[in-house]
Amino acid sequence: MRGMKKVISSIKGIDERIMRKAQTRLDSLTKPPGSLGRLEELARVIAGITGKAMPRLNEKVIFTLAADHGVCAENISAFPSDVTVQMVGNFLKGGAGINVLAGHIGARVVVADLGVKSDFAPRFSKKLKRKKVNFGTRNFILGPAMSRGEAVRSVQNGIDIFEEELDRGIDIIGTGEMGIGNTTASSAIAACITRTDPSETAGRGTGLGDKALQHKITVIRKALEVNRPDPGDALDVLSKVGGFEIGGLAGIMLAAASRKVPVVLDGFISGAAALIAVGLQPKVKEYMIASHCSVERGHKVILEYLGIDPVLNLDLRLGEGTGAALGIFIAEAATKILTGMATFQQARVSERKSP
Amino acid sequence: MRGMKKVISSIKGIDERIMRKAQTRLDSLTKPPGSLGRLEELARVIAGITGKAMPRLNEKVIFTLAADHGVCAENISAFPSDVTVQMVGNFLKGGAGINVLAGHIGARVVVADLGVKSDFAPRFSKKLKRKKVNFGTRNFILGPAMSRGEAVRSVQNGIDIFEEELDRGIDIIGTGEMGIGNTTASSAIAACITRTDPSETAGRGTGLGDKALQHKITVIRKALEVNRPDPGDALDVLSKVGGFEIGGLAGIMLAAASRKVPVVLDGFISGAAALIAVGLQPKVKEYMIASHCSVERGHKVILEYLGIDPVLNLDLRLGEGTGAALGIFIAEAATKILTGMATFQQARVSERKSP
Repeated sequence: MRGMKKVISSIKGIDERIMRKAQTRLDSLTKPPGSLGRLEELARVIAGITGKAMPRLNEKVIFTLAADHGVCAENISAFPSDVTVQMVGNFLKGGAGINVLAGHIGARVVVADLGVKSDFAPRFSKKLKRKKVNFGTRNFILGPAMSRGEAVRSVQNGIDIFEEELDRGIDIIGTGEMGIGNTTASSAIAACITRTDPSETAGRGTGLGDKALQHKITVIRKALEVNRPDPGDALDVLSKVGGFEIGGLAGIMLAAASRKVPVVLDGFISGAAALIAVGLQPKVKEYMIASHCSVERGHKVILEYLGIDPVLNLDLRLGEGTGAALGIFIAEAATKILTGMATFQQARVSERKSP
Repeated sequence: MRGMKKVISSIKGIDERIMRKAQTRLDSLTKPPGSLGRLEELARVIAGITGKAMPRLNEKVIFTLAADHGVCAENISAFPSDVTVQMVGNFLKGGAGINVLAGHIGARVVVADLGVKSDFAPRFSKKLKRKKVNFGTRNFILGPAMSRGEAVRSVQNGIDIFEEELDRGIDIIGTGEMGIGNTTASSAIAACITRTDPSETAGRGTGLGDKALQHKITVIRKALEVNRPDPGDALDVLSKVGGFEIGGLAGIMLAAASRKVPVVLDGFISGAAALIAVGLQPKVKEYMIASHCSVERGHKVILEYLGIDPVLNLDLRLGEGTGAALGIFIAEAATKILTGMATFQQARVSERKSP
């Protein structure tokens, strides 16, 4: 396994030369130049990421990382925190939204425990990646959610999860998560790193009413005051107001970028993890594709900060990697356009008149 | 085969009772209520359209209809009009964008000639549906594009194409087209029916520059002045400034609605056909799902007029049914959520706390 620092330093910018090559081919295909819009842009970017002019995305993997959040003690979620462990069981049995959508696109789901507050029965052993950093974070309105060492370990565990799956093949990944309370942690991360007021990064999560939302904002504000995370130090932010699954996802993003694998971001929590990953290595941003913009309002703040535009308009707010699954399918469509269409010459179709 | 009037009168509103049943199931699934946003809305609507609480969309069909436009004589397109027949050849050989994307989603493509200006070689016989109404429309700045009888025939031919495919199975359809010059016809239809100035319904088509766009707007304005189509009479609009593939698509939409099959609209030209179909039978609107909003600016005008929101954000402007193909995949994802996810009870996951 490679260490975090080595992975971070091995990430290079995406391949501009291959992108130009892909563009030349896109312009030779039987369609008005540019008429497939963002599909063409995605095809070009995926060529640049993979370093292949004719990329194929056969092996699709959704990483769904779970962990619990001590801040649930402040009553910031519409669901009890037992739901985290129950939903992990549901993922492993194949009954959750992400299982359905991953099946729809032909992706495999890798489920990992980064810090669920209870232990899993041994019968789950085969299907669950056990990468627990601790039994849930601490309540971050009282002090840091985790130690700096735990923050590093969560990122490293994410890297390890990715690397362990390499042998089975990975051509593109989606990021997903489950963790009751994690929109609160993500709102705090987003507020800190994008320097936005918590009232603009906090949303209703799994379904808070107006009053409960106000309370959540107060909790986030207090957490930031108590911990004073340094926006310029991603590990400091992660340790003070983050979560183990968020650190894990950041690690997966870094590992993917270092292996030239496109990263399709899911929703708000993936966005918060992306802020951590980009904080550790700005170049990782070039490897990211945004699948959708969540109803969770802070997601828009994050996507604007990162400067990436989502492809789907579906008002999702489930997480798990559900939006990422659909985004992967669109990315695959884009590469098939690049590799599967006939050129004007092959099809003997007349080209454009001179403009 | 059923006649147009019979098809139109057989269309009923979608099934509200089944929609409520689908909603009850959606709310019992292991996710916060409503958290899959528009996927849940799509699932509910598709249940209502099909009359099935657990709909399955196995047989997916894209109808790609081609025809030529006499108004090309006015030099309103960036591509020569020979491209229509050449691209039909490309569809039949499988090299076009729609072939790639239909393959990606597991749909079959039905290609039909509704009014291409040249004949097709007999070798195409097996794959091409020959439903030619005439060899291209007339130049509509000089008078009507077609006779009223031809307008009726184009709609009827669309109905026939759909009905002929029924035996092979149709669970959901996408609408597509090919016809150099057809954004000009569609802009004229949209301007007339939505009562919007042509400067707001005309766009760059396959790639016009600023000057050419101004010329296109002038041509549309003249066509509307010369022909004075009656916005309240869809067949009058179709005959005066429409196209054979547009009439055919309207017929396909009507036939689909009468058979309780969801219609996924592609881009601008499909939108113009939708205006004609809705003009003939307002209830057909309930069967329509918008896949994307085209870069072609008149499309937004049409979608707002119809009051339907697109699911994809991809800046497409190719047509052929490419956006519809991706939209069908999202619709299928929605039905799989409805039919494939575990309930809270099945998965033994705790439900929401009382709000």
